[in-house]
Amino acid sequence: MAICKSHGQDSSYFIGWQEYEKNPYHPIRNPSGIIQMGLAENQLSFDLLESWLTRNQDVIQFRENGGSMFRDLALFQDYHGLQAFKNVLVAFMAEIRKKKVKFDPKNLVLTAGSTSANETLIFCLAEPGEALLIPTPYYPGFDRDLKWRTGAEIVPIHCYSSNNFRITESALEEAYEQAQKLNLTVKGVFITNPSNPLGTTMSHDELNILITFAMAKNIHIVSDEIYAGTVFDSPKFISIMEALIDRKLEKSKMWNQVHIVSSLSKDLGLPGFRIGMIYSNNETLIAAATKMSSFGLISSQTQYLLSKILGDRKFIKRYVKENKKQLKHRREMLASGLANSGIECLESNAGLFCFVDMKDLLKSNTFEAEMELWKKIISDVGLNVSPGSSCHCSEPGWFRICFANMSKETLDIAMQRINDFVKSNGNLRRNLQLPSVAAAAGSRRRRTIANWVVKLSSGDGRTDR
Amino acid sequence: MAICKSHGQDSSYFIGWQEYEKNPYHPIRNPSGIIQMGLAENQLSFDLLESWLTRNQDVIQFRENGGSMFRDLALFQDYHGLQAFKNVLVAFMAEIRKKKVKFDPKNLVLTAGSTSANETLIFCLAEPGEALLIPTPYYPGFDRDLKWRTGAEIVPIHCYSSNNFRITESALEEAYEQAQKLNLTVKGVFITNPSNPLGTTMSHDELNILITFAMAKNIHIVSDEIYAGTVFDSPKFISIMEALIDRKLEKSKMWNQVHIVSSLSKDLGLPGFRIGMIYSNNETLIAAATKMSSFGLISSQTQYLLSKILGDRKFIKRYVKENKKQLKHRREMLASGLANSGIECLESNAGLFCFVDMKDLLKSNTFEAEMELWKKIISDVGLNVSPGSSCHCSEPGWFRICFANMSKETLDIAMQRINDFVKSNGNLRRNLQLPSVAAAAGSRRRRTIANWVVKLSSGDGRTDR
Repeated sequence: MAICKSHGQDSSYFIGWQEYEKNPYHPIRNPSGIIQMGLAENQLSFDLLESWLTRNQDVIQFRENGGSMFRDLALFQDYHGLQAFKNVLVAFMAEIRKKKVKFDPKNLVLTAGSTSANETLIFCLAEPGEALLIPTPYYPGFDRDLKWRTGAEIVPIHCYSSNNFRITESALEEAYEQAQKLNLTVKGVFITNPSNPLGTTMSHDELNILITFAMAKNIHIVSDEIYAGTVFDSPKFISIMEALIDRKLEKSKMWNQVHIVSSLSKDLGLPGFRIGMIYSNNETLIAAATKMSSFGLISSQTQYLLSKILGDRKFIKRYVKENKKQLKHRREMLASGLANSGIECLESNAGLFCFVDMKDLLKSNTFEAEMELWKKIISDVGLNVSPGSSCHCSEPGWFRICFANMSKETLDIAMQRINDFVKSNGNLRRNLQLPSVAAAAGSRRRRTIANWVVKLSSGDGRTDR
Repeated sequence: MAICKSHGQDSSYFIGWQEYEKNPYHPIRNPSGIIQMGLAENQLSFDLLESWLTRNQDVIQFRENGGSMFRDLALFQDYHGLQAFKNVLVAFMAEIRKKKVKFDPKNLVLTAGSTSANETLIFCLAEPGEALLIPTPYYPGFDRDLKWRTGAEIVPIHCYSSNNFRITESALEEAYEQAQKLNLTVKGVFITNPSNPLGTTMSHDELNILITFAMAKNIHIVSDEIYAGTVFDSPKFISIMEALIDRKLEKSKMWNQVHIVSSLSKDLGLPGFRIGMIYSNNETLIAAATKMSSFGLISSQTQYLLSKILGDRKFIKRYVKENKKQLKHRREMLASGLANSGIECLESNAGLFCFVDMKDLLKSNTFEAEMELWKKIISDVGLNVSPGSSCHCSEPGWFRICFANMSKETLDIAMQRINDFVKSNGNLRRNLQLPSVAAAAGSRRRRTIANWVVKLSSGDGRTDR
């Protein structure tokens, strides 16, 4: 396993970061450097958190009721987690789902980030060689998180821009049949809602199609909802649990076959603190996942701090509201900046990124051309963005561009650079007709990673989603 | 895997904790409750850590050079870890090994506790169905940590009290042959040095026998050295790395086949902060383990705090010295208290516990009798200790008793309780001749877990070692 390559580290997604690290943009020290737009970080609301910390010095100093919590916390290693922390976590989960679902802390398992939550769920649900179906495009890290150590397989559910990458019944059935052809037992469908990289939330119809499918096949649904707190615009976010409740499935078998992954890395912008969690109504799964959480417990120091921050309900309400306002504003800056260059974003209402259509800038409708354009965007334009192919997108020409990990000034400069690039490369623009789905699927099969990419060493260590 | 029982949660080791939780001793509120002596916690030197925190308020408030580190830490999720933290960790590792070994931070992988470090190492070294040899008695949690998710197997190296449970060449060979009989490929020997539950350090001779054996078989050595900082008495602790250097094996193949696990849970008494690590000279292993550490990263908040505490070299020197003095004193209290009752401890120089010989109190020389005595010690004496059988001890009648997780007053009361018990149960004492090794091995095969044990629910969540 130590020499196995299936961790996906060599993906262009990670390699772009390495290029960035070699020549990072800085407004004064390195104004011609690469601007990092491949990192789904939420840096927009740190001022709120920092002012909370200033007002609550006691908490970070472990002081409570006149005594010190240090000793108790230093010794606390119960894998059930701090009860006070779990109580406020489920309240937060309910809050960002508009209280449409009631969550019970006894159904929650804490994990060191959602990376660990996802792997733990797969260890619980699938034996080596069994498969999960995942809609494309999806977060590149899943190839590492879900497959590497568990031995499980991923079978893509191919989604296309023609219907804004929505999941359809036929796409689900096709993926299921594909798994059967490969002699893989399908254990579940794994969705990311809101989607990374699309920045969209799943519709009621989509969720219903998915639930009906899972019931018919008697398989599980894992819903990675780590971006639930970033939904900044309509349509509103519907959690898979809400969709189950709407269909009155609380007493059905399906109720125990649906599992949510959540995190504070995106909603609160705290990836460094490694706070992830699994929520499920399935007692057996919760018991097993709790035991497995020994392999990735959250520092009690951090559990304690966050139990206090989240426990300040008034503050959290304000934070979520302000943060969404900021995100919406940034999304608009990015979308209008790109529109000025004639580039369109997929309509979106969530996340820290847009999924951007650059098909018109491709030399040909292939993934090779996408890699070529990507290389040019890094080296000539000075932006690190993530090519759709790194997210297993089923058609070439799409890029994920992040907007919440930089200042407004930097975002403006990035937009200016794109504008200059499109202008000066007018001759590249081929005014292609939109490619047919069939043509795109064909070019997917011809996909190779450009040589220069694999020659790069893989030294970057971010766990980013 | 979710319904698999191999996590070892039903071991008497864990069940004793549950009994304790139902009726915990408190000097005033519950003076007849159970005293917890089954928990290898180091609570003796918290005053030093707390006074350091009082003197260094800036650190826990994220203040550095007039600015706040909060934002940077909140975003820091590089699986290579904070460089400043790794630098001071290797200095600490060298310090507690009397600077006989020089450690390089680039050979270090951070993990969320040594539980995660151990599992990660097994994922790197063994495929499912391959085996590690482990000397008995060993920490009960290894059955969960090393086998459960990796699919690896443990083959015991049977050690006996006749030579103070030392590893011998023949014991190693026997275990290796046993693995071959079971059709298991042996990938390494896994030792705990200082030993949990023995509280002893391995001698130069033992380490040499082990190294020679590993070289002959071309297998790995994992040395779990999480108790390295607790060595409070002579003979001095010899790390496996020091033993390699003494034999000038730095250029040999073996140099890349030896891996150390370390932690701050025992040495600094901080299990709640989940700070574990892997050290190895093997580049391939370090690269793979670093990637795997994504599944159990240490909170950046905690990395930062500990980088500052360990960075205070003068404080750390004083801490280690004071802590050892305290441990030595407690060990003497326990050993002399037991001696007053005619009970002997295995001679020891490290750890947070003694391995205690209660063979004379067994009704018969069997593991059934050991379980019966253990049950009596919990229910009648009111002490939770760990039976040797839970540590896979190869002969009945031994118990691990912890001494560093309670006040002196509580330890005194525990000793008094034992004394009363032995006096009133004089008729139980059989004045047996010491059992022969063969008889002990025979009784091992007859071992079963008493029915009342498996009926208990398994609800406790400590990750304790």
